[in-house]
Parts: sequence; structure tokens; C-alpha cells
Amino acid sequence: MKIICNKNNLVHGVSIVSKAVSNKTTLSILECILIEANAGIITFTANDMELGIETKIQGQIIEQGKIALDAKLFSEIVRKLPDNDVIIETDQDFKAVITCEKACFQIMGQEGNEFPYLPEIEKEKSITLSQFSLKEIIRQTIFSISDNENTKLMTGELFEVKDHQLSVVSLDGHRISIRKIDLKDSYDSFKVVVPGKTLQEIVKIISGETEEDVTIYVTSKHILFEFNDTKVVSRLLEGEYYKISQMLSSDYETKITINKKEFLNCIDRASLLIRESDKKPIIINITDNSLELSISSFFGSMEENIMITKEGRDLFIGFNPKFLMDVLRVIDDEEIHIYLVNPKAPCFIKDEAGYYTYLILPVNFNH
Amino acid sequence: MKIICNKNNLVHGVSIVSKAVSNKTTLSILECILIEANAGIITFTANDMELGIETKIQGQIIEQGKIALDAKLFSEIVRKLPDNDVIIETDQDFKAVITCEKACFQIMGQEGNEFPYLPEIEKEKSITLSQFSLKEIIRQTIFSISDNENTKLMTGELFEVKDHQLSVVSLDGHRISIRKIDLKDSYDSFKVVVPGKTLQEIVKIISGETEEDVTIYVTSKHILFEFNDTKVVSRLLEGEYYKISQMLSSDYETKITINKKEFLNCIDRASLLIRESDKKPIIINITDNSLELSISSFFGSMEENIMITKEGRDLFIGFNPKFLMDVLRVIDDEEIHIYLVNPKAPCFIKDEAGYYTYLILPVNFNH
Repeated sequence: MKIICNKNNLVHGVSIVSKAVSNKTTLSILECILIEANAGIITFTANDMELGIETKIQGQIIEQGKIALDAKLFSEIVRKLPDNDVIIETDQDFKAVITCEKACFQIMGQEGNEFPYLPEIEKEKSITLSQFSLKEIIRQTIFSISDNENTKLMTGELFEVKDHQLSVVSLDGHRISIRKIDLKDSYDSFKVVVPGKTLQEIVKIISGETEEDVTIYVTSKHILFEFNDTKVVSRLLEGEYYKISQMLSSDYETKITINKKEFLNCIDRASLLIRESDKKPIIINITDNSLELSISSFFGSMEENIMITKEGRDLFIGFNPKFLMDVLRVIDDEEIHIYLVNPKAPCFIKDEAGYYTYLILPVNFNH
Repeated sequence: MKIICNKNNLVHGVSIVSKAVSNKTTLSILECILIEANAGIITFTANDMELGIETKIQGQIIEQGKIALDAKLFSEIVRKLPDNDVIIETDQDFKAVITCEKACFQIMGQEGNEFPYLPEIEKEKSITLSQFSLKEIIRQTIFSISDNENTKLMTGELFEVKDHQLSVVSLDGHRISIRKIDLKDSYDSFKVVVPGKTLQEIVKIISGETEEDVTIYVTSKHILFEFNDTKVVSRLLEGEYYKISQMLSSDYETKITINKKEFLNCIDRASLLIRESDKKPIIINITDNSLELSISSFFGSMEENIMITKEGRDLFIGFNPKFLMDVLRVIDDEEIHIYLVNPKAPCFIKDEAGYYTYLILPVNFNH
């Protein structure tokens, strides 16, 4: 194989596929990037057997072929080369010579044919949305997945399509996040659970532009994201996702409207006095026109009042401050509505149009 | 004590003195910042018994007094307060109430009188230079101090003043860095060894402006840096510093002139193929008009040529790439001169005016 590519194209390609390079494997081929020059197209591929990424690289093919190169070493080399054309040439012993201006590297590669190909995905069911929308909807829900491998389904997110709407759900046993967006077209329904890790890598790769689209294809076992010159394939999590409709109720005893930024800053300050291990709740006292937040710990105490508008009963309730902050950080509205029932029942933060619903369980406390 | 200060003044003051807060002590008072309101002046002080910092804070004194507050907690609280005036009020039980807008914190402080005062420094011997110059001369030498506590003097830098000149020297047994600068005035001679840690903290605090000065006072035991509203006091390292004049020689067999940036980038690329633990040298082959750099390791090999001008003999010599890069990174000249004798003798990188001299020992290699 012999190809000539600009250094910046190589760096761009490497940074995309690197997200799928395995870093805890005994199979050294999975630590590689596969470089393929074939039928006029140069592609880079990485595959950790859960997640696979393939991207096209601009460049010139002098001789067709393929080689697998150690991802870390190859990535470091191309990053440090001068900003100019780079020649990558390999021989039948899998030795790769990388030349740029007067610098010349020789590294050992591996047989390209031993690299595991990405699964072929049948393109039957799909949706198309902007990269911006996909990035946002993941960011606005990903924080409430679980990292506990014993409840495997909780480590992923439910992607459900029905007609014109995509809804994304995540939950970890203490809270639920639900976001909905309207799609431009109507699609066949589907329901899949996508691993959290895949989504965390996808948000790093997609541009986040409103003008650039991503098409998502699903089969019973896999999901494929196609955008620009890149394909990301991931296994799905198997099993029936939690029935959340029965956990959602629209009854409430207390409804408050509060300035989001003021509430967030106030909780942020209060949580200074708590160490992760403490599990101390912040105490919220809701009375007419006022929310009083207070916290008392080994380190000291703090209290602060925020003006609100309230409907319904007064309430005294405790929360894990992190759970509230996670939600407040991903809501763009200036004013938010919080619906509460009693100190033991979950609270809901949701908009009137139903595009977002966040459920948070309260924490018991002694007072 | 009761004072009112703007939040930003508090944050600024805390960030300066925090550099001297002890983080490995069993004396909880050393983890505190002392706040003193006395004779119209508010000061913050921190002191880890090696390094002490005192700075003045703009603000209003309602009631004189002093209190020692846990540095980490106090710093986090003031950072997260709204951008407004902050009232700090303490009572005789050392309880501190910190109020800003509607937020109100209560934390426990400690008796201010138990806080160890900074040593009084006799202001006899001193020099004055710009903060920019001090910051630069430290940055250009600090990388070659040793971190080995068994050779205590090597963990500091020699500051030597003679007439109009300040020279700063550091060495670690493999290399020596010497920088000289001309001072605006002539001063009484002195020679002190300043702990590396003190210098590392000083560069973080001083502004680096050419128009702002710093005055340095020395006694037999201490050094005091005075600038803006801040005083930094440090113990000196005791003992006679190494006689470096006998290690410096102006004889050479080979002199090369090379583009600094090209040389630095080339070594940077080559060092990709070396892991810290390897201790593999880069090999430099100097012939007429050409320096060939090569490296061969478990990971692969690399070679690259750079155009040079050369006086004297050809030479084949090995170096630790990090030692060369450390020096090249702190030289501003576009072209540099390197003086060599043979593969066992140190090389010198120095300018003709004698403002900088860097000595690096070569590394043995088999070829």
C-alpha cells in the first residue's frame, strides 16, 4: 500500500476513529487503526467489538492495500509531523514507512486482513435529524444513566420513534430524564436501547451544526449513525426497557415557578458544605412566594431565600443537590416549573409543551 | 471582627495566599487563612512554615479583629458567592458568618492569635527588577533543579547578585542552567539558594508585567519578595552552593549553528518512540552542513536531517531528548549555537553575549 494524504486530514481521521480503539484488550489488533486504500477510497477503521467507527480520508492512492497500525503510536506520529503531505508506504512484511518532509518514521504494523470488519447493517428502519439536535438530546439526558453493570439496561438510553417524534429516556433508579423532539418526517416506529458509552463517543465526534444531518439506522442488534464521511456502528443493549409511563403522574399538590439560574447557583453554593460521601440532602422549605434552601453539615451551615410563585400547599422536602443541578444545567428555559406532592413522592420538573420531563426522588431527612 | 469586601477582591486575595497554605500538616491552623482587620487595613496571611504569603485586601472595617478560617472551605465559599459585597462577621466563639445578598453561610473558624506570624525580615540587602524579568529568569532555569531531597541544595536555585547583574543557576547532576540579567542599579553582592517550591509559587502570583516591579530582600536565613500589596517570605536553603565555574569551559572541537524551532520539533517527533522508562538516547550525527538525528527503539525507528552551519570536526553523540527540549523551549533566539568537544564531554548551548549558558551531559550509546 502507498498513499499520500495531508497531515491535517490524517489527524482529523485518526481523532474520529480513535474513539473506538480498545484500550483494555488482550488482542493487539483491536488496539490498531485499519488503513485501507481500495477502489479510489482511503478509509480508517477502529473497532473494539462493541463500537466500530469507519471514516473516509481525503488523499491519493499510489498503490492499493491495507495495514493495521497501532492507534496510539500512529496518532502521536501524525500529530507531530510538519503541516505537509505525508506518504504512508507498507511492504509485505507489514513494515510501514511514514515520511513527511525530511522526517522519516518506520514502525511495524499488522496484517490488515486480521482486522475485524464492522457488521453489515440492513438499512430498513431509519430516522434523520440534525447533528445539533442529536448532540443536544444526548447531553440533556445522558447524566442520569447508571454506571452499574448489574442493571445493564440502565447503562443505556431508550431511543423511541413514533411517527414524527423521537423520545430519549434514561434512568438510574433515583431519577428519570425524558426528552422529546419533533422530526421533519414521519417514520416507522422503533424502540432500541443504545449503550451510554456509544452515545458519549458520538457526541464527541458529531459537529453539532444545525445544518449537518445524521441518519440513524437500527436493526434488532445494532445501531448505525451515518454522517459526513463517517459511520459509527454499535451493538444495542438487549432486553425490554423499563415501563416508565406508570411512574409518571400529572397529579400534584404544589406547583412552583422559579428562576432557573438563581436556583442553580444557590444549590451550587449550598453543596460546598457537602462531601460526596456524606449523602447529606439540601432542605427546601416552600411557603408563599418564597423558597428557603438550607443545609447543615460538619463543615458549617448555609441558608438562602429565593422568590417564587406558588400554587397549592406549603412543603418541606429534601433532595440530593447533584440530582437537581444535573437537571437545571441542561434546561435552557429561564423560568421552570416544579410539581410536587409530598416529602416522600417524586418531584417533576417539566415544561408545559411536554418536550422535557425530569423526575427526581426526594431524600428522607430528620428535622 | 466585621468587614465588608467586594467578592472579587476576596477571590483575588484568597488565590494569592492559597499558594502558601499547607496541605500536608497535622496542625489544622496551618490549613487556614488568617484574616486580620487592624488599623484600617485588611490582610490575608497563609504560612506553611517554609513559605509565607501576606496580601492586603480592599474593603471596609466595621469592627477590628482577626480570625483563622479553613482555606479550602473559605476559598470555595467566596468563589461561589454572587458578584457583590460580602460581609464577614465573627464572634468571640470564632463562629464566622459570611453574608452576600440573600446567601448566608456559617462556618467555624479558629483563634487568630494562634496563627504563626511571618518572620520579620531586616531590609538591608535588596534588589529591584520587573516582575516580567523575575518570571522569565525563573521559567528559563527552574526545569533543571533536582527533586531529590538527598541533595537538598540541588532542589533550589542560586540567586547571585554582583554589581549590576543578577545570575540564577540551577543544576541536577546531568545539566546546568545559567541565566544572567542586567539590573537598573548597582547593588551590594549576595549569594543565596532559594527553594524551588518558593520560586514555582512566585511565578504563579506575580503578574509578569514589565511595568510592575518586585523588590527582593535577603537575610542569612530568609528571602522576601515584595510587590503590589503582597509579601512572600521563604526560608533559604542552607549550605555552600556548587562551584560551577570549574565545570564551564570555553574550549570546543565542534560548533554548530542551527534553527531552534526546527531542532526542537525534530527532537519532539523523535521522542515519540521513547517511553520515559527506556532512557534511550537520540543519536546526533554532525557532518558538514547537516545534522542527522536518529532514534531506534522497540516501537520503531525515525531519522531526520536538519541543515546547519558547522565549524570544526564531525561528531557522533547521544543525548536524553528531554534535556535538549527543556533548554530549547526557553530560548527565544531563532538561531542557536551549540559547542561540543567529544561524545563523552558536556555540550554547551550559549549565546555570544553570555546571558545564557546551558550545559548538558551526553548519554553513552552503542553503535
